[in-house]
Amino acid sequence: MSYALVGELFAYVFIPATAIVGIGFALYQWFLVSRITVSPTSRALNGGPLEGLLENEAEEGVDGNTAVSKCCEIQNAISVGATSFLFTQYKYLGVFMIVFGGIIFLFLGSVKGFSTKSEPCAYDETKLCKPALANAIFSTIAFLLGALTSVLSGFLGMKIATYANARTTLEARKGVNKAFVAAFRSGSVMGFLLAANGLLVLYIAICVFKWYYGDDWEGLYESITGYGLGGSSMALFGRVGGGIYTKAADVGADLVGKVEKNIPEDDPRNPAVIADNVGDNVGDIAGMGSDLFGSYAESSCAALFVASISSFGVEHDFMAMSYPLIISSMGILVCMITTLLTTEIFEIKSEKEIEPMLKRQLIISTVLMTIGIAIVSFIALPSSFELFDLGSKKTVKNWHLFFSVSIGLWMGLIIGYITEYFTSNAYGPVRDVADSCRTGAATNVIFGLALGYKSVIIPIFAIAIAIYVSFSLAAMYGVAMAALGMLSTIAIGLTIDAYGPISDNAGGIAEMAGMSREIRQRTDALDAAGNTTAAIGKGFAIGSAALVSLALFGAFVSRASLKTVDLLSAKVFIGLIVGAMLPYWFSSMTMKSVGSAALKMVEEVRRQFNTTPGLMEGRVKPDYANCVKISTDASLREMLPPGALVLLSPLIAGTFFGVQTLSGLLAGALVSGVQVAISASNTGGAWDNAKKYIEAGSTEHARSLGPKGSDPHKAAVIGDTVGDPLKDTSGPSLNILIKLMAVESLVFAPFFAAHGGLLFKYL
Amino acid sequence: MSYALVGELFAYVFIPATAIVGIGFALYQWFLVSRITVSPTSRALNGGPLEGLLENEAEEGVDGNTAVSKCCEIQNAISVGATSFLFTQYKYLGVFMIVFGGIIFLFLGSVKGFSTKSEPCAYDETKLCKPALANAIFSTIAFLLGALTSVLSGFLGMKIATYANARTTLEARKGVNKAFVAAFRSGSVMGFLLAANGLLVLYIAICVFKWYYGDDWEGLYESITGYGLGGSSMALFGRVGGGIYTKAADVGADLVGKVEKNIPEDDPRNPAVIADNVGDNVGDIAGMGSDLFGSYAESSCAALFVASISSFGVEHDFMAMSYPLIISSMGILVCMITTLLTTEIFEIKSEKEIEPMLKRQLIISTVLMTIGIAIVSFIALPSSFELFDLGSKKTVKNWHLFFSVSIGLWMGLIIGYITEYFTSNAYGPVRDVADSCRTGAATNVIFGLALGYKSVIIPIFAIAIAIYVSFSLAAMYGVAMAALGMLSTIAIGLTIDAYGPISDNAGGIAEMAGMSREIRQRTDALDAAGNTTAAIGKGFAIGSAALVSLALFGAFVSRASLKTVDLLSAKVFIGLIVGAMLPYWFSSMTMKSVGSAALKMVEEVRRQFNTTPGLMEGRVKPDYANCVKISTDASLREMLPPGALVLLSPLIAGTFFGVQTLSGLLAGALVSGVQVAISASNTGGAWDNAKKYIEAGSTEHARSLGPKGSDPHKAAVIGDTVGDPLKDTSGPSLNILIKLMAVESLVFAPFFAAHGGLLFKYL
Repeated sequence: MSYALVGELFAYVFIPATAIVGIGFALYQWFLVSRITVSPTSRALNGGPLEGLLENEAEEGVDGNTAVSKCCEIQNAISVGATSFLFTQYKYLGVFMIVFGGIIFLFLGSVKGFSTKSEPCAYDETKLCKPALANAIFSTIAFLLGALTSVLSGFLGMKIATYANARTTLEARKGVNKAFVAAFRSGSVMGFLLAANGLLVLYIAICVFKWYYGDDWEGLYESITGYGLGGSSMALFGRVGGGIYTKAADVGADLVGKVEKNIPEDDPRNPAVIADNVGDNVGDIAGMGSDLFGSYAESSCAALFVASISSFGVEHDFMAMSYPLIISSMGILVCMITTLLTTEIFEIKSEKEIEPMLKRQLIISTVLMTIGIAIVSFIALPSSFELFDLGSKKTVKNWHLFFSVSIGLWMGLIIGYITEYFTSNAYGPVRDVADSCRTGAATNVIFGLALGYKSVIIPIFAIAIAIYVSFSLAAMYGVAMAALGMLSTIAIGLTIDAYGPISDNAGGIAEMAGMSREIRQRTDALDAAGNTTAAIGKGFAIGSAALVSLALFGAFVSRASLKTVDLLSAKVFIGLIVGAMLPYWFSSMTMKSVGSAALKMVEEVRRQFNTTPGLMEGRVKPDYANCVKISTDASLREMLPPGALVLLSPLIAGTFFGVQTLSGLLAGALVSGVQVAISASNTGGAWDNAKKYIEAGSTEHARSLGPKGSDPHKAAVIGDTVGDPLKDTSGPSLNILIKLMAVESLVFAPFFAAHGGLLFKYL
Repeated sequence: MSYALVGELFAYVFIPATAIVGIGFALYQWFLVSRITVSPTSRALNGGPLEGLLENEAEEGVDGNTAVSKCCEIQNAISVGATSFLFTQYKYLGVFMIVFGGIIFLFLGSVKGFSTKSEPCAYDETKLCKPALANAIFSTIAFLLGALTSVLSGFLGMKIATYANARTTLEARKGVNKAFVAAFRSGSVMGFLLAANGLLVLYIAICVFKWYYGDDWEGLYESITGYGLGGSSMALFGRVGGGIYTKAADVGADLVGKVEKNIPEDDPRNPAVIADNVGDNVGDIAGMGSDLFGSYAESSCAALFVASISSFGVEHDFMAMSYPLIISSMGILVCMITTLLTTEIFEIKSEKEIEPMLKRQLIISTVLMTIGIAIVSFIALPSSFELFDLGSKKTVKNWHLFFSVSIGLWMGLIIGYITEYFTSNAYGPVRDVADSCRTGAATNVIFGLALGYKSVIIPIFAIAIAIYVSFSLAAMYGVAMAALGMLSTIAIGLTIDAYGPISDNAGGIAEMAGMSREIRQRTDALDAAGNTTAAIGKGFAIGSAALVSLALFGAFVSRASLKTVDLLSAKVFIGLIVGAMLPYWFSSMTMKSVGSAALKMVEEVRRQFNTTPGLMEGRVKPDYANCVKISTDASLREMLPPGALVLLSPLIAGTFFGVQTLSGLLAGALVSGVQVAISASNTGGAWDNAKKYIEAGSTEHARSLGPKGSDPHKAAVIGDTVGDPLKDTSGPSLNILIKLMAVESLVFAPFFAAHGGLLFKYL
């Protein structure tokens, strides 16, 4: 066997160095954003004129100073609401972490009856490995680390987002480029913090665990898989809880405000408006941050685990072993270059350039990353090595891995673009949906559902191609690396994702602060571009989730010592069909939760409009806090049953039906869940943009359907409302369902293999 | 090995005898229905009073004679429309049959290069079997026979339905029991004709093929599988074409009539009303008949094929070999007894008794059939025998098969009842959906979708249990027999299924003929009960489809000589994920087709209302023919792409990617399709009944949501319209997708095994 071009010292230096640089970069961006001041008083005290008024003096009778202080006040309300929600949620999650950590410890410890004796290794019986109890302890620690990192990622993202939204609004006064840069920079704070933190914590955990595990790398990387489980289980509650929060508020606000009272979105008279804006931050920012962190942690763990039982691990080649981490490090560097190009070199001259600019980011980072992957593959990997392939060995070249990682990266881009095609109103599909509003809400819903189903086709082929190529080249390791490839530009992906809700909030703040039409137009343009790119981001998230779960599934099968998973066995097949059902069960819960919470919100908003004199005329402030409370209570109460479903299904299947049925369950949930997720997200996105298309009236066709308040527009609003829980609650949560079930099975595999299948044993 | 209690003479006599008795019974029922006269003139000529007026003289100012002649006229229009549509469709299908028959011949003939030499048998190389060319010829013949029987079943069903609808309306004048018996009898004509015909043709084909095949039973039953393919491919076009036809008309009629013009359903002023009623007959009757015939033919073929390579076939035990056919024969007898109980012994005294009566039918037939299965299993099977189990042999007792068949039968009943629970407005789920209409159409759609997702859970567990039990007891033969068990009471199931659209049409005719409110109430009661039981029937259809396709899948795998289908192989997994996508692709096509056709229909109906003076006032007749033409054209044009998708997918996968990928594709389509089908059907059913619940206003709660025309009712109508293509086009067509792909793969298996996987071979 050959060795890599550089020694393992490179890994020890390069990984933490890039992670620290990434964190530093994020903090620097935060510093730049913080230089935008939001309090008018400080400058008023200095006697200077208000910055915002320099360029745009025709403020349409809106007093600049009042507007700024209103911005400040609203931002504060959103930030306080979001922080208080997250802290309440974290109390629940803290209890969960302790309980579930205990379960991990007990289940894994019981594999060998809590024995403290070393045992023959699973893959090489001539050596001694650390006891199962150590695996129990370290898996639990890794779980807690992953959970905490996930929570931290979400929280910091929310903090910067609520810090940046009013600043973006204020920058919009100076021009669209300034506002764009403010929103984009703030997004990048989240993107880089998350990517670099995730990498750094994982790296440190590996180094620390190594002190104990020494040469037992199998044991080491088995324990590390707990990190993925921790990240993903927090993500589940973050996505589901945040998703229910944001959509209950959104649907509730729209149903009364837009449909019944005919007041615009984000109107300050609407009592649910603050809850709605808080929701964007806890759902789309904190929830999505946790989600992508989970994907990242899981694909790294899956790749590391498979590598540890391959020649890298057996021969203790730490350099090659760290290949997944080095790919991620390279990703941080590439994304940093791309970000600097955007904020320092390119400049946006008109509102039309925003969307192409964001899309250009994706292409630049993808092209640069392909070069990066090539460099890493050729210097960090031996030219030829052996990978574990379900009981047998497979000889692999370093360029095989280059192709595996790259195909993931590029298929991600394709999925993103297809998602955009089906959800942007610049193209035919969404315009067809908008057109169907002519005959009312029913045809709109029918066309929207059909669009969602159709949008599944090409992404599934792209995923299938990525799986086939990466698996043929490098077995399950290849699939894990393809997933990591898709996520290698995660920092840019997250930047763009976070940019969306920040712009959305900025628009909301402009509306609520009563700013001029021009400012609102600018923030709307930022928001519209953000909507499209958010769709691309969701495509990435789902595509990578599919690959990650397959890789985790492969790792689980290896760890459970299965050689085949035969579809023709009844045990496997019943798992498959029940697994394919789980996404439906899960969606029924989350959709119903949003529906019920929205009903309560509607009643509260109606009550306030009916019983508060002067509210409709804008003389009296609504009681925002009550609506915030309804969303909070609903999301905390309703996130538990779907969470329990996802976490208990693998445990029940593994314990009572055994690893064969569990394998079927995972495969079924994967292949069915990915379809439901894609179609739900895209259907919702298309309805949203069909409505915006009619509202914007930018083409002859759109004007024939509009204006706001016309019958087709009303039909479009109904579609948009139906789409809310599909695209922001059910759809994205399903990513987590398929990943989390797989990583949980992987962590618990030794227990299932030792004690699983109780029902079949005793029947 | 032991032998059965009775000799094979029993099989030779019992099967054709019950089939002929079944046909005779159907004709006798037809004769009874035909004694209800619909032409007023004949009796007027005799000077006698109109029968219909005897009991119900207070006709609310409606002239009885005019009403009867109107009934006659409308029935005629519906019958002519349906017949002309079916004949046009059959022209297309004729071309398809010839082309596809040619493909079967060429593909199967090419397996051994059209050689006419006998060859060593696949499962016993010491014997000589008939050449592959014979298989090509006889498979093609069996395909054509299956196709023709399917078409005949659908056509006869449509004929009796359009013959019976006006008769049911007229009988409703004499009382609800009379009307019920008329509709039920007519339904039973279709049920028994189809079940008995299907059995008889299959039996005759086996006997005739035996002349040529002699002792080569493998070859014989391999060729017979073409019968299932023929039946199912016609069913596909029937379901899809009929589904598009009926829903385009229904949605189009509702969108203008109910929503815009505020005129009732089935109002004769609506130009689409005749097309709508024709649609019920070509979609719900002819389409569903072909569908269930297909399921029946396929499960018989799958069971026979597996048996032929087990000890029954090897040892030429024709009695045991015919076990599947004898089960079906017993089913005909049991259903005959059940029907006679209904029409001759029980009597309905009030409208409330209709639904319990129909449900009692199902329970009676299920209980009797369980006894029937026991008798057949103990007299027709040896007490112990060996079954082929994917390369190995499994020893099985006759009571194992009793349990396999029975579990299918009873799980079918459970699925039916769960379906009813989720779609009948007597229970909580639909009432919740109705309640959500308070806040508008959006929440109605959200709650409806959530309900559909939730309704998947228990049926999937029921299917999984049936699979596990039957597979554990008797391998794939057990699964095939469980499917046949679920279908053993098909005659009663179809009777009840056909009863629904007949009652629906009867109500439509009453409305169009301007009959009294009381008559309409009676037909509405018949219709409402029919809706509920139709949901049960759909549950059966989907459940049996899942089992049938698994059995066919097992047979395919055996025929393609695969020993395992390993999920961990990339070839299988990409098949699995793409297969799971196909139901979405298919649904996007069918939904879009209904949407587009409905848009055209809406435009035509609007045009007529706007340009025809006096139409709205009822002074001028609308141009029904134009609407019929729009539905016809749309359904014929639009049925081709989804049909091509279903038929080409297995051919492409098998030819270019090989049997492994094809296996994955079939399994993926099965486990994903069954979920989409159940949720789509139940969502649609629930919306329909939520709307009816509000309209009927039978509870305090319902009245608080109504009356017709209230905002909640309008929201409910939107849900109902969205549900139409889901429950009557996409949902039920998916049954056929999963079955047809499996049976096609089974028929083409020798070709794929010999020449398949071109892409992997040359890459």
